[in-house]
Amino acid sequence: MSHSAGPTSPPAADAILTLNAGSSSIKFALFRIVDADIMVAVRGQIDGIGTAPRFRAADPEGNRLGEQAWTDDARFQEDLLQFLLDWIVAHLGPDRLVAVGHRVVHGGRDHDRPALVTADLLASLEALVPLAPLHQPHNLAPIRAVEAIRPGLSQVACFDTAFHHAMPMVAARIALPREFEALGLRRYGFHGLSYEYITRRLRVLSPGIAAGRVIVAHLGNGASLCAMANGQSQDTTMSFTPLDGLVMGTRCGSIDPGAILYLLREQGMDADQVENLLDRRSGLLGVSGLSSDMRVLLDSDDPKAAEAVELFVYHVAREAGAMASTLGGVDGIVFTGGIGEHAAKVRALVCERLVWLGAEMNDMANEAGKDIISTADSRVEIRVVPTDEESMIAHHTLDLCAGI
Amino acid sequence: MSHSAGPTSPPAADAILTLNAGSSSIKFALFRIVDADIMVAVRGQIDGIGTAPRFRAADPEGNRLGEQAWTDDARFQEDLLQFLLDWIVAHLGPDRLVAVGHRVVHGGRDHDRPALVTADLLASLEALVPLAPLHQPHNLAPIRAVEAIRPGLSQVACFDTAFHHAMPMVAARIALPREFEALGLRRYGFHGLSYEYITRRLRVLSPGIAAGRVIVAHLGNGASLCAMANGQSQDTTMSFTPLDGLVMGTRCGSIDPGAILYLLREQGMDADQVENLLDRRSGLLGVSGLSSDMRVLLDSDDPKAAEAVELFVYHVAREAGAMASTLGGVDGIVFTGGIGEHAAKVRALVCERLVWLGAEMNDMANEAGKDIISTADSRVEIRVVPTDEESMIAHHTLDLCAGI
Repeated sequence: MSHSAGPTSPPAADAILTLNAGSSSIKFALFRIVDADIMVAVRGQIDGIGTAPRFRAADPEGNRLGEQAWTDDARFQEDLLQFLLDWIVAHLGPDRLVAVGHRVVHGGRDHDRPALVTADLLASLEALVPLAPLHQPHNLAPIRAVEAIRPGLSQVACFDTAFHHAMPMVAARIALPREFEALGLRRYGFHGLSYEYITRRLRVLSPGIAAGRVIVAHLGNGASLCAMANGQSQDTTMSFTPLDGLVMGTRCGSIDPGAILYLLREQGMDADQVENLLDRRSGLLGVSGLSSDMRVLLDSDDPKAAEAVELFVYHVAREAGAMASTLGGVDGIVFTGGIGEHAAKVRALVCERLVWLGAEMNDMANEAGKDIISTADSRVEIRVVPTDEESMIAHHTLDLCAGI
Repeated sequence: MSHSAGPTSPPAADAILTLNAGSSSIKFALFRIVDADIMVAVRGQIDGIGTAPRFRAADPEGNRLGEQAWTDDARFQEDLLQFLLDWIVAHLGPDRLVAVGHRVVHGGRDHDRPALVTADLLASLEALVPLAPLHQPHNLAPIRAVEAIRPGLSQVACFDTAFHHAMPMVAARIALPREFEALGLRRYGFHGLSYEYITRRLRVLSPGIAAGRVIVAHLGNGASLCAMANGQSQDTTMSFTPLDGLVMGTRCGSIDPGAILYLLREQGMDADQVENLLDRRSGLLGVSGLSSDMRVLLDSDDPKAAEAVELFVYHVAREAGAMASTLGGVDGIVFTGGIGEHAAKVRALVCERLVWLGAEMNDMANEAGKDIISTADSRVEIRVVPTDEESMIAHHTLDLCAGI
């Protein structure tokens, strides 16, 4: 762990820390506020929480700024957050940490935009834990930890559901009796910070397409599609929870409700066991029997690995058709997320299935990882746009804390 | 109840009875075998089983042949089957009942075609009850009842899954660990007898389209789509059970598995209660709070009825996009089933959302209920083809019993 302010260090600035906390990892980034805009200074993560935690931080050029591993007893998230905040403060030098922005998976029905954290807000987000039991608690714990370590520091909650908040009701409705809708059973959609970032980028990169009908494929360990018209979410494949929709690293995605009843009754599983199965043991991992990591599967010559990749691709293409139907056609397709940005082979296999939509891939551009990977004649523009949820969180945090 | 053999009665023939038994109804038809082909003689049903059973039978022109209601205690299915067989025998006149064909919802992995009923077959179909607990027992009971009443009479089981048996594995696979696939957890698909009938009709009515890429929308109280290439099922919206896919009369269709976990844990429901909710209280009925009957909803001026219709239409169009993606485009769309055949308004609303696929509806033809309801210029041919699962069952029964 080291911190060096070089001789050409810029003048002191306010800084924003972003935290994106999951069950076993915390991704973070530090942004300096310069001329009312944000500039990333540090990116890093702590992973292996609960088993063998490891901290890494790098500057925007990828130079290592810090690294630490804990080989003794696994640390609690709170201890690691304390370590992280200490490291950040040590790294700040003359800069001043003015706010922390958090990714919060579920904003429920009430939150259509990011919000300053208050005790009331925290209570209302706590009430949403049953709607995202595997994610929400991990998102809220760091908010409480920061408040305990640095009382009074401004914190902002940025919701993964907010981008889909204005989705047409017909796309959000679940076909249950109305009293269940009143309980909050609706299709919320997730990956909203990523989709919001992509929309903003697309407005710069390709304004004509951004104003049109676009399918964004956020393909990572979690994966979803979003149908956007003029940058507004019209439908998305994740719904009530992040378990629905596409086949994912360890999640099954859409599955017949009758299959769950079968697991409960015929296999004698309880709800926790079903959740563990569908959320952690299924998807690419379950089908391949090998790995949840697309890179491993693409490199493998095990036929089951190939079948897992094929299944993943099939459902991306199938659901892209559903999204296209909602949009009434497609002008642009954007790939993002770990797989979407880096797995040229997966992009190629998906687009092979989407030629009928008017999407013609330029294979060389795709393999070279170009920004635009469609042919000049393609009726549908195909792009790779790296996502950056952290900068989206920092933007929102800056907006909400600007007057503070 | 009446039976009259008129003066111009044809000579005695062999006859086939078809039974399509559900939880509260038995649809039946009697076919005479003439020149190695089948000709329908009687169609009818017993409905209200378990509450207030009512029997009705009519000739092919719709003239009433029999009618009876039971206002006393609700009868058991077995008693009603005894009544039905007695009525059929009385109605046969000089004809000879040579076989009974049954619709059986689930054929599992082993049955890719109809099969003669044996004790072994019955046992293997019994083992599939957990895969279709709400349908399979009602399909098997009449087979046993007929065997008890008329031992030795040939019986044929026709499976609703068989048509989808050769569906590509990538469309059939559920993204669970392989050991669950080995237990039979896969996407089977249903409405196969209807789809098979439609394919056969389409080969006659529109051979060019039949050889191409067709989406068949079987829209009734149960509803599904099938993607067909050259008459072969490539994918379908129902999957492991008939609960998945489209919004239906009382079924929710596709729903986030996380929503089911929520119902179990947060609402304290058990598997039976969840099943009852998703299967009998959801769909059009649940969303409208009014009725599962599309006719009632279309006639209602309740905004919730309109919302239920809109949701139904939205999902048909959305999933049609998914089917189109699987097929790589569409040459024909066929509407069938109670809603598909009779609800011009629903067809119009669906096709409004499918213009982007190249499907242009001829509104006058649609309202007039013509066979072809697309414009002459439409790139996609849109048709209404009345389905006839009973005649499909009779055909299969004849084929299997011809040598007997």
